[in-house]
Amino acid sequence: MLQFTFLGTSSGVPTLTRNVSGLAINYCKSKDWILVDAGEGTQHRIQQAKLSLQHLKAICITHVHGDHCYGLMGLLASAGMNARKDPITLIAPKEIQQWLEVTCQFTELFLPYPIHFIDVNTLTSPLQLDAHISIDAHHLHHRVTSYAYGFKATQTQRKLNIEVLNQLKIPKGKLWGDLQQGQNIEWNGQSILSQDVLIQNTQSVYAIVGGDNDQPELLSNACQDVALLIHETTYTQSILDKVGAGPMHSSAKMVAEFAESIQLSNLIATHLSARYHDAQGVQSIGDEIAQYYHGNFYIADDFDQYELNMHGELTQLRSGKPWEK
Amino acid sequence: MLQFTFLGTSSGVPTLTRNVSGLAINYCKSKDWILVDAGEGTQHRIQQAKLSLQHLKAICITHVHGDHCYGLMGLLASAGMNARKDPITLIAPKEIQQWLEVTCQFTELFLPYPIHFIDVNTLTSPLQLDAHISIDAHHLHHRVTSYAYGFKATQTQRKLNIEVLNQLKIPKGKLWGDLQQGQNIEWNGQSILSQDVLIQNTQSVYAIVGGDNDQPELLSNACQDVALLIHETTYTQSILDKVGAGPMHSSAKMVAEFAESIQLSNLIATHLSARYHDAQGVQSIGDEIAQYYHGNFYIADDFDQYELNMHGELTQLRSGKPWEK
Repeated sequence: MLQFTFLGTSSGVPTLTRNVSGLAINYCKSKDWILVDAGEGTQHRIQQAKLSLQHLKAICITHVHGDHCYGLMGLLASAGMNARKDPITLIAPKEIQQWLEVTCQFTELFLPYPIHFIDVNTLTSPLQLDAHISIDAHHLHHRVTSYAYGFKATQTQRKLNIEVLNQLKIPKGKLWGDLQQGQNIEWNGQSILSQDVLIQNTQSVYAIVGGDNDQPELLSNACQDVALLIHETTYTQSILDKVGAGPMHSSAKMVAEFAESIQLSNLIATHLSARYHDAQGVQSIGDEIAQYYHGNFYIADDFDQYELNMHGELTQLRSGKPWEK
Repeated sequence: MLQFTFLGTSSGVPTLTRNVSGLAINYCKSKDWILVDAGEGTQHRIQQAKLSLQHLKAICITHVHGDHCYGLMGLLASAGMNARKDPITLIAPKEIQQWLEVTCQFTELFLPYPIHFIDVNTLTSPLQLDAHISIDAHHLHHRVTSYAYGFKATQTQRKLNIEVLNQLKIPKGKLWGDLQQGQNIEWNGQSILSQDVLIQNTQSVYAIVGGDNDQPELLSNACQDVALLIHETTYTQSILDKVGAGPMHSSAKMVAEFAESIQLSNLIATHLSARYHDAQGVQSIGDEIAQYYHGNFYIADDFDQYELNMHGELTQLRSGKPWEK
């Protein structure tokens, strides 16, 4: 399964209630987790959400705008001050690597752990981060090169094939346990291979997290097997019409129409302009989505937490206000 | 007068209660204000403290370590997104200017207002920022080049010299008002110059805000006319002895002994290691200062606010918890 904790849901600038972009992804009950974008103050949100920088396995940066990356240096530095040794995988536009290098130089930052940098532009096939998760990337359209990241969680359930075990007359107990754990055993002078008595059931679920983007339809192909799309809805359509196309963001209507066109199962809208940060603003974004999209959707608030199970069903685990420490 | 609002009082890393370094200085009832250091999240604290980025006149960065400057880019960007046009004076080590330039380049940040950069190393005489405040800088001793900034607030009170006005037989009313406002008048066919009937009383008060530093005594000369010193006390002496001299910070004892040696009137201790962020930790820092220094002192907490009047008297205006919005 995939769990999403929203660390920042504001577009451009932080407000008193919403920070700039950051999204934590936990998967398959692993201690490890992945961060998508790191606007300023993301490390503060990580602390508040009780996530550990020690278990942050990978960071994906969608694009170079400050509200998506100005918190990167601080959280890398803090992980270093907490004596982290394990490498962090950093997938980002190549400018982020250059910026990291000069920042380390100018601010005398010495990280005691390696950064495995991957230029997102070279990520043409999925990166298998560990046994449970892979990451791919998809081009978007914005003022600067921008990407969506896809996360495919894979879980394998191993059940003993009771029929075969009974045929072999292997008694219940320790031997069954060993076989289930993947160990081969000796029984009646015969070698029994674990794989021969296990039924393996592998399931996967796929979600896409977009960066800034004014052409949701660019994700049409990527969304073919998607159970959840997380996408920016910076404005309502009427405000986008007033602001003009210059900022190159999506309206709620644009995203909703795209979601409807591909019969998307689950949508989470985020990256709201500061003008929508009160209840009325959220309502107007929600009303617009509901007008054009008939699937399941949420509008993310900071510290909201959602779980996508292996059947592609989305539920909200936590909502609204920051958790008390 | 000088007002100090602490935006961050933690050393190195933020915690749930204290952010990394940032200090707002208001002066002489001006709308303008000055920021000393900008650790990550400073713009969030600025919002919470109800300060306006539009009136931020100058930023002084003490040294290049991230916990003192990683919030700089975000707050400059946010000021730009709020359509600021007025220039900001930035006094800092030259590496900060270089870092700002490459950050603008790599993250496509276009600021719609000018930055007047001053290399702190060239600030050999006080900079008169406006009629009310001047800034100077003093070398400290740390792992990287580090500075203290001095702030001299000047206020001029203009009173009418009643005796002279009576001698000249100028009647009370509009003419007196004009003269007090600095306007010259005609009376009985005679030109009366405002300056000839005004008693001007100019007062000034001086405070120093240190950056990271393990040799408080470097400020001996600078502190000759100081009414307030704000200085880091990262550790108690026993912890500094365990940690060793490597981090190049001051203990509470070191700062207290220096303050006592120069008969300092007012001290505010800040920049506490995360191990002191509970009440017991603060108490241990306070006990150590009280043991070696007999002047007036406070240990700063985030959102604490202090006022230094023109007589050099320090009072605490706000204490403790963040203000509710």
